[in-house]
Amino acid sequence: MADEFDVIVIGAGPAGENVVDRAVRGGLTAAIVEERLAGGECSYWACVPSKALLRPIDLAGEVGRVPGLSLGPIDTAAVLARRDEAVSNYDDAGQVRWLESVPAELVRGRGRLDGPKRVRVTAEDGAERVLTARQAVVLATGSTAVVPPVPGMAEAAPWTSHEVTATSTIPERLAVIGGGVVACEMAQAMHGLGARQTTVLVRGGSLLNRMEPFAGELLAESFADAGIDVRTHTDIARVERPEPGGKVTVHLAEGPPLEADELLVATGRRVATGNLGLDTVGLPDDAPVEVDDSMRATGIADGWLYAVGDVNGRVLLTHMGKYQARICGDVIAARARGDELPAMRDLAGGYGAPQVVFTDPQICAVGRTEEAARRAGIRVRAVDYDMGSVTGAYLQGDGYRGRARAVVDEDRKVLVGITFAAPGAAELLHAATIAVTAEVPLDRLWHAVPSFPTVSEVWLRLLEAYGM
Amino acid sequence: MADEFDVIVIGAGPAGENVVDRAVRGGLTAAIVEERLAGGECSYWACVPSKALLRPIDLAGEVGRVPGLSLGPIDTAAVLARRDEAVSNYDDAGQVRWLESVPAELVRGRGRLDGPKRVRVTAEDGAERVLTARQAVVLATGSTAVVPPVPGMAEAAPWTSHEVTATSTIPERLAVIGGGVVACEMAQAMHGLGARQTTVLVRGGSLLNRMEPFAGELLAESFADAGIDVRTHTDIARVERPEPGGKVTVHLAEGPPLEADELLVATGRRVATGNLGLDTVGLPDDAPVEVDDSMRATGIADGWLYAVGDVNGRVLLTHMGKYQARICGDVIAARARGDELPAMRDLAGGYGAPQVVFTDPQICAVGRTEEAARRAGIRVRAVDYDMGSVTGAYLQGDGYRGRARAVVDEDRKVLVGITFAAPGAAELLHAATIAVTAEVPLDRLWHAVPSFPTVSEVWLRLLEAYGM
Repeated sequence: MADEFDVIVIGAGPAGENVVDRAVRGGLTAAIVEERLAGGECSYWACVPSKALLRPIDLAGEVGRVPGLSLGPIDTAAVLARRDEAVSNYDDAGQVRWLESVPAELVRGRGRLDGPKRVRVTAEDGAERVLTARQAVVLATGSTAVVPPVPGMAEAAPWTSHEVTATSTIPERLAVIGGGVVACEMAQAMHGLGARQTTVLVRGGSLLNRMEPFAGELLAESFADAGIDVRTHTDIARVERPEPGGKVTVHLAEGPPLEADELLVATGRRVATGNLGLDTVGLPDDAPVEVDDSMRATGIADGWLYAVGDVNGRVLLTHMGKYQARICGDVIAARARGDELPAMRDLAGGYGAPQVVFTDPQICAVGRTEEAARRAGIRVRAVDYDMGSVTGAYLQGDGYRGRARAVVDEDRKVLVGITFAAPGAAELLHAATIAVTAEVPLDRLWHAVPSFPTVSEVWLRLLEAYGM
Repeated sequence: MADEFDVIVIGAGPAGENVVDRAVRGGLTAAIVEERLAGGECSYWACVPSKALLRPIDLAGEVGRVPGLSLGPIDTAAVLARRDEAVSNYDDAGQVRWLESVPAELVRGRGRLDGPKRVRVTAEDGAERVLTARQAVVLATGSTAVVPPVPGMAEAAPWTSHEVTATSTIPERLAVIGGGVVACEMAQAMHGLGARQTTVLVRGGSLLNRMEPFAGELLAESFADAGIDVRTHTDIARVERPEPGGKVTVHLAEGPPLEADELLVATGRRVATGNLGLDTVGLPDDAPVEVDDSMRATGIADGWLYAVGDVNGRVLLTHMGKYQARICGDVIAARARGDELPAMRDLAGGYGAPQVVFTDPQICAVGRTEEAARRAGIRVRAVDYDMGSVTGAYLQGDGYRGRARAVVDEDRKVLVGITFAAPGAAELLHAATIAVTAEVPLDRLWHAVPSFPTVSEVWLRLLEAYGM
C-alpha cells in the first residue's frame, strides 16, 4: 500500500466522500480516513435514521386528515426494522464498495494532522500509519452533540441524536432538552412511536428560534394538539439518575421536578476539531477551521489544507457539506493542474442555506428571515399567506393548517427568504431555493405558473399578496 | 340594473373570475355572465372533485409503501362526502358572495355576442337582457367533453369527466375510453374506490402520449400492478346499451366485446364556441378564438374582444386560463387608461405549460419533451435519473419507483423541459417551472442546493448526470 496520495480526506461522511469522488474524477488519487463507519454520522445516526422514524408518523398525520381512510396502530417494531434497513444495519459494506469504485483508498482508524501534508492514522488495534498528501489534506470530521455542563447531566449518560436515532426501544416517558431541529424532530418521532409522555424543555421562549417566529408557533400548536408537552423558559438545575439506564429526574430551576424513563439532550453541536492535530500546523484546536469560499483553510502556508462540512463551522447541514465538498474536490483537482476554477466557490451559503425540519407541520426555509434581512441592512417587505386557503392544500385534507412568508428585497425586487410551515411542505422548498439563489426577479417569477390544484399555488398567492 | 359595464365576461369559471377581479381592481366596472354555476367546470366537475376523489387513493398508495402502517378498507361514502364538500354541494353561494365582494355583477343566463360590444343574455326562464361593454367583452366559456362519433356511443349516454367526477355510486365494472389525463386519473380513482374491473381502452400505443414516453410506461406498470387493465391499439367498433343506465357492451374492432356497468369517454375536449354569437362579429363559430399574447382576439376592429382559458385553444389547463385571465384583466384596465402594459403578456405559454397528472405515480412536466424540443429545432441533450436512487425517495417508502428527465438546450445551457414521474411528485414541479420560465442558467442552478434528505435531491442528481 502506497502511503502517498494526491488528496487525503479525514472523515468519510457525505462531505468527505464527495470530496474524494470529485477529486478522483478530476484525475487525482485519494485516500479517505474513517474511524467509525464509512458513510458518516448522517447515514447512520442522524438524517437518514431520523427520517426513517419520522416518515410513518408524518404519513399517519396526513391520513388522519383525509376522510375515508383509517389507520391501525403504528407497528413500532416494523418502523424500527425499516430504520435498521435504512442504515444498512449499521454496516458500511455498501459504502466501502462505493469507495472502491471511485476508486479511493479507505484507511480505517483515527486520523490526525502530523505537520504539513502529513496525516497520522491510528487503527483500532493501535497500529499507526503515516500518509503524505501531494496536493491537499481535507478535514471532514463533522461535529458532535454537546452535553451542557449541568450538574449530574453527563453522569446520567443521556441520549443525544446519536442514541435516539439508533434506539431499539421507545421510552414510555421521554424528556427532551432543547428546542431546535433535533429536539423537535425526535420529540415528534418518539411520541408518535409510543412515548406516551413526551416533554420538551426549552430554555428560550419558542421552538426553532432561528426560523420565522410563526414556524415555531405553528409547530407548538401541533405539538399541543398531539399531546406533546412543550415547556418554554425552562432552566435545568440538575439531573439525577441513580441507576444507569434507569429512571431520570430533571430538576428545574422552578416548579416540581420532571421524571422520565429517558433523557434526550439536543442543545447543539460542537465541531469535531479536538485531537485532530490542528496544533501541528499552527491552528487552534478548539474552534471551527476557517476557510475561504473555495474551502481552503486560511492561514496555512502553501494552502494545502481544506475543510468541508460541519468542521468549518459555516453551516451544519449535510447538503451544504456535500455542496462544499463538490466545490472543494473540483477546486483541488483544478489547482493541481494550475487552474483556479473561479466559478466553483461557495455562492449558496451567502444566501442562507435551505433547511427542512421533518415535523408535522414540516418547516422549510431558505435565505433570510425577515428579521435577519433587516439586521443585514436590506430594505425588505415580508408578505404572508395562510396556506390553508390554497385550494390544493384544502384538497390535502381536513384541517390543513400552514403559513408561508416571502421576504422581498424592495430595492432589487428579488426574494431573499422564504419560509413554509405546513404539512408535507418539504418538497415545496426547492422552488424557493432556486428563486433565492438565482435571484429571479419578481416580475419574471410572476410568469412561473403553479399547476392547479397543487399546494405550490401558494406561490401565486404570495405574489398576489405582494400586489402583483 | 344598469346594462352598461366597462367589461363583460361570458363564463364565470376560474378564468372569467380572474378577469373581473383584475379589471375591477384596475378601476373598471364588470359584469360576468354564467348559465350554470359561478365557479365553473373546474370547481364542480373537473379539477377539484377529481382531486378530492384521488387524494385518498394516492395516500393509500403511499401508506402501502411504508412498513409499520396498515390501512383499513377505504370508506367510499366518506370519500364521496368529502368530494361533495369540496364542490360546496354543487352550490355556488360562496362564489356569488365573492363576486359581490369584487364587486362584479353576476348575470345568470346564457350569454352570446350580439354584434360589437353587445352581449345578449337569455335566462333560464327565457327572459332576455342586452348588456353593452364600454371597453371589452371577454369570452371565457371553456370547453366541453367530446364524445367520438362511434355507432351507439352517444345513445349510450356515457359518462364524461362531468359525470364521473360527480358520481354518487362506483360501478363494479368500468370501461374507460381514452389514454389522456382524464382517462388515467379517473381510472385510478374509480378503481381505488371500488370499480373492481377497470379497463382502459386506448387507441394509440401508450398512456399520456403527449408526455415523455417513460411517463406513460411507468404509469402503465403501476396500473398493471394495481389490476387496472390497459389495452392499447384498441379501436371501438360500436357501443350497445339497450337499457338507459344499464349494462354497456363495447364492441372492439378485434377480439371479444367488453361488458361494463358504466362507460367513461375521455377522448378530448372541444372549445365551447358554439352558439356564442361569434358570427355576429365576423368570427367562425366552430374554432378556438384566436388571440394575441395580451388575450385580445385577432381580426376584430377596435380590438374590444378578448378570450381567455380553454376557449382560445392555447392550452386547456385551469392554471393557464387563470394566468391568461390575470394578464387580460390587467391589460384591459391599462388600455382603458391609455397604457399598453407591455410586461403583461403571455410569456409562460411559449415555454410549455406545467401540468400535473394526479395518478400514482404522479406525472409532472413543464416545458418541452425531448422530442418536442428537437422538433422545434433546439439542440438538446436529455439526462435521466432513476428517482428511486435518491435517498429522500427511498425514505418515502419501499418500492418507490420514479424517473426524472431534464432536457437541456445545449446552445444556451438552460433547461427547456423537465418531467418527473414518481409518487407524490406534484410539488416537485414548481421548481422546474421556475427554472424553465426564468431560464436560469445551469451554472447558477448548480448552486441551488436541494435539502437532504428530500426527493428534490433529484435536482442534484440530474445536474451530476449532465456532468456538472
